[in-house]
Amino acid sequence: MSTLDRGPSVGLVIVTHGGSGECLLAAAGEICGPVGNAAAVGVRNHDEFTDVVRRVGRACDEVDGGAGVLILVDIHGSSEFQACLAMVDGSRPVEIVCGVNLPMLLKLATVDRQVMRPADMAELIKEVGKRSIRLGSELTGKISMHPEERR
Amino acid sequence: MSTLDRGPSVGLVIVTHGGSGECLLAAAGEICGPVGNAAAVGVRNHDEFTDVVRRVGRACDEVDGGAGVLILVDIHGSSEFQACLAMVDGSRPVEIVCGVNLPMLLKLATVDRQVMRPADMAELIKEVGKRSIRLGSELTGKISMHPEERR
Repeated sequence: MSTLDRGPSVGLVIVTHGGSGECLLAAAGEICGPVGNAAAVGVRNHDEFTDVVRRVGRACDEVDGGAGVLILVDIHGSSEFQACLAMVDGSRPVEIVCGVNLPMLLKLATVDRQVMRPADMAELIKEVGKRSIRLGSELTGKISMHPEERR
Repeated sequence: MSTLDRGPSVGLVIVTHGGSGECLLAAAGEICGPVGNAAAVGVRNHDEFTDVVRRVGRACDEVDGGAGVLILVDIHGSSEFQACLAMVDGSRPVEIVCGVNLPMLLKLATVDRQVMRPADMAELIKEVGKRSIRLGSELTGKISMHPEERR
């Protein structure tokens, strides 16, 4: 496929309480190399809702090259999530994934965001995120109990 | 139940690439109030493995009041995860949950860590974490597509 055949890339926006979105992007960048077309929006407790909506909107504008935006948010039901929902206004393809964690970002750093739509990427990383949540004992068979429990 | 009947609290340690663990703890504290007996260990790309093990061990010692430790880590298979595994040495009850996200911490901020064991807490927040990963369109029925896709 020539570069001429390739469309614009889907943008990524991470919206979190506090600075964890920026940390997640930085961590993904350290592990996989810089994540392009991505922005983090950190929200503080007392930020005005309209201001948060404006900042999330500006971040979407910055990263959207014409293929839409995938928004990752830390928890649903929060005002941060409501601000993300305000982006679902029909002006561009948008999907939101709640419960962001680092394995999702590592996956997004490796998929071809020029050939997937936001909705398909969201379905993919929803599964990646869920699968990444594992117990150490499941992965290794090692269990550490209190000495008294071992009897 | 009198306070005399209550045992020590299970400690929490969050181990992440970069500073997201500290941000997650701060965010949970802002939402639910301070999370007690909890520590974050941030690991940089070039940190020595033995140093990471030592720091995770020190954090476990700090938060463990005698009931053991629940360790949350961002991704399994990483050297951070290996450092967490080094804590599973039989000296205390320990369980590890991979794929940490904020909903897990919010749950941990509200459970009674004096009556649950690390393994039970891990099972609980594994499910909480998985359930928290949802799509915006699932939660609201709202979908935003590209104008051209709507035909």
